[in-house]
Amino acid sequence: MPSSEFSIIEEFFAINSAQGMMPTLGIGDDCAVLDIPSDKQLAVSTDTLVEDVHFLSNSDPRLLGHKALAVNLSDIAAMGATPTWVSLAITLPAIDKGWLSSFSQGFFALAKEHSVQIIGGDTTRGPLSITVNIMGLLPNGQCLARSGAKVGDAIYVSGTIGNAGLGLKKAIKADVDQKDPDVGSYLKPEPCVSLGEAILSMANSCIDVSDGLSADLNHILKASHVGATISHEDMPFTQSVKEYMEENNDDLWPYSTGDDYQLCFTMPPQTSISELATYDVTKIGVIEEKQGLRIKFNDGKLITLNKGFDHFQPVSGELGISTAE
Amino acid sequence: MPSSEFSIIEEFFAINSAQGMMPTLGIGDDCAVLDIPSDKQLAVSTDTLVEDVHFLSNSDPRLLGHKALAVNLSDIAAMGATPTWVSLAITLPAIDKGWLSSFSQGFFALAKEHSVQIIGGDTTRGPLSITVNIMGLLPNGQCLARSGAKVGDAIYVSGTIGNAGLGLKKAIKADVDQKDPDVGSYLKPEPCVSLGEAILSMANSCIDVSDGLSADLNHILKASHVGATISHEDMPFTQSVKEYMEENNDDLWPYSTGDDYQLCFTMPPQTSISELATYDVTKIGVIEEKQGLRIKFNDGKLITLNKGFDHFQPVSGELGISTAE
Repeated sequence: MPSSEFSIIEEFFAINSAQGMMPTLGIGDDCAVLDIPSDKQLAVSTDTLVEDVHFLSNSDPRLLGHKALAVNLSDIAAMGATPTWVSLAITLPAIDKGWLSSFSQGFFALAKEHSVQIIGGDTTRGPLSITVNIMGLLPNGQCLARSGAKVGDAIYVSGTIGNAGLGLKKAIKADVDQKDPDVGSYLKPEPCVSLGEAILSMANSCIDVSDGLSADLNHILKASHVGATISHEDMPFTQSVKEYMEENNDDLWPYSTGDDYQLCFTMPPQTSISELATYDVTKIGVIEEKQGLRIKFNDGKLITLNKGFDHFQPVSGELGISTAE
Repeated sequence: MPSSEFSIIEEFFAINSAQGMMPTLGIGDDCAVLDIPSDKQLAVSTDTLVEDVHFLSNSDPRLLGHKALAVNLSDIAAMGATPTWVSLAITLPAIDKGWLSSFSQGFFALAKEHSVQIIGGDTTRGPLSITVNIMGLLPNGQCLARSGAKVGDAIYVSGTIGNAGLGLKKAIKADVDQKDPDVGSYLKPEPCVSLGEAILSMANSCIDVSDGLSADLNHILKASHVGATISHEDMPFTQSVKEYMEENNDDLWPYSTGDDYQLCFTMPPQTSISELATYDVTKIGVIEEKQGLRIKFNDGKLITLNKGFDHFQPVSGELGISTAE
């Protein structure tokens, strides 16, 4: 049998058809057809990963499959939605069954974990890139928009910040240690889907930290017409990130590096976070009326950070690798 | 202001926000949020166009913007759905405002024509490619699947067949005549959205002719577990296509060439097509129990055509340009 586009889709992309919310009509027609429950709204997002831009050209295809879905699940998480369906458009220079098999294993392992059903795809020939379109469900009238932050809200972030950026710096070295947790943060991000669902009824605003905390929190501030001050000393930095800042004498570095795929969200100050006890979340600051994002240091220094990551002005040097949105 | 990703999206992709069915939350958040009317289902499709694979590298960006949306609208048409929302993921080597402006003009002119609302996008740096995710609405319980063809059904095709393939052959020549109708068929296909809606309650099966009539009709036959015989002499070939077949002594050529974006559909034999009087549709054959696709010639010759276009085994030579799905 020739390795035609049709057999590629059938062989690699239609393998997990027995879980999650089944489409009315799935892979194999001109469109998928989906029934949306009448008490639900649909959340939709698209992200593209391009070789040598969002990932290294020697990337492990299994990790790449994971990451391509993870960065999209992260957008669903940031809306507080429950992921349900995904389409995968993959462009690759030539058929490589080993590569495709590993890629799909990574993709589907994560899809299975989140009961996400693949409903369609497109396979084309060309320079390697992957575009995922993901859909999730939300109760009618509810979502975690960027525009809902209120003056006085406490600002939270999940997990730790800066590790993926540090992992990228380590991953592009010749002697990369695959077991280094920072490298793992970069290569295999875990989207905060469950946390997003948990805060849907609690938070006023939310975004996923993909382009760097500074850029992403600034999106919330701009959309909500507010400002914020965050405390540098309260930031969840690991020892490895602290050491990097110290060695490079650059306290601001982790605010501008991307790919962490944590959630940054704001909640009214009186909100009890006891319901979030099973999640790793840290209060880092407060929403204020005065526009702009300020970083406050223990020594009294106050720095305004209003810029973030830009895909067309890469911040990471050697290979011109930038982070995924 | 730097030409950042955010300003690109705002500047070029958010310009037609005042038409069609508004999203609850549109461009500018982690996801778009959509309310689906309770009497409707959602039809979803994704298609990618890659430079030097699906379009020539010197393509007019306005025509490319049109085509990127047209090929996706064609999938919506093939389901009988009404297009509503679209996401645009575009990867481009560098910011070229002139190119982007023309591309978006072509894209949005067609979007406006069909009242399609753009709900999101992703802009990344890399080799030029465009992935569109399109959504449309269908009445609950209705769609034009490939799998519904019944023995005895009449097979119809819209418009004419082979012109886009001929147009591609003309377009890659140095002295291309932009006003040649075949070139126009290739560069600026018009999706049959209105016809798709018109046949939703009439047809048993439908597909859009993107990979060549042979490949696409074979998809219907395979999905419906039936066969077909079509009459070569009944096929809607223009004089230009007939001349090409004659000059090249290749009667089968237009069955395997793609990019026509016509609809091929089957209807019960007794169905009156008076309701379709305003459309250009031609009866070309009959669905039969015997598997396989047969082309019948007036001289009694019968040829079985069970293969079609394959993106990884390009059929068109010189530039390795293949047709979009």
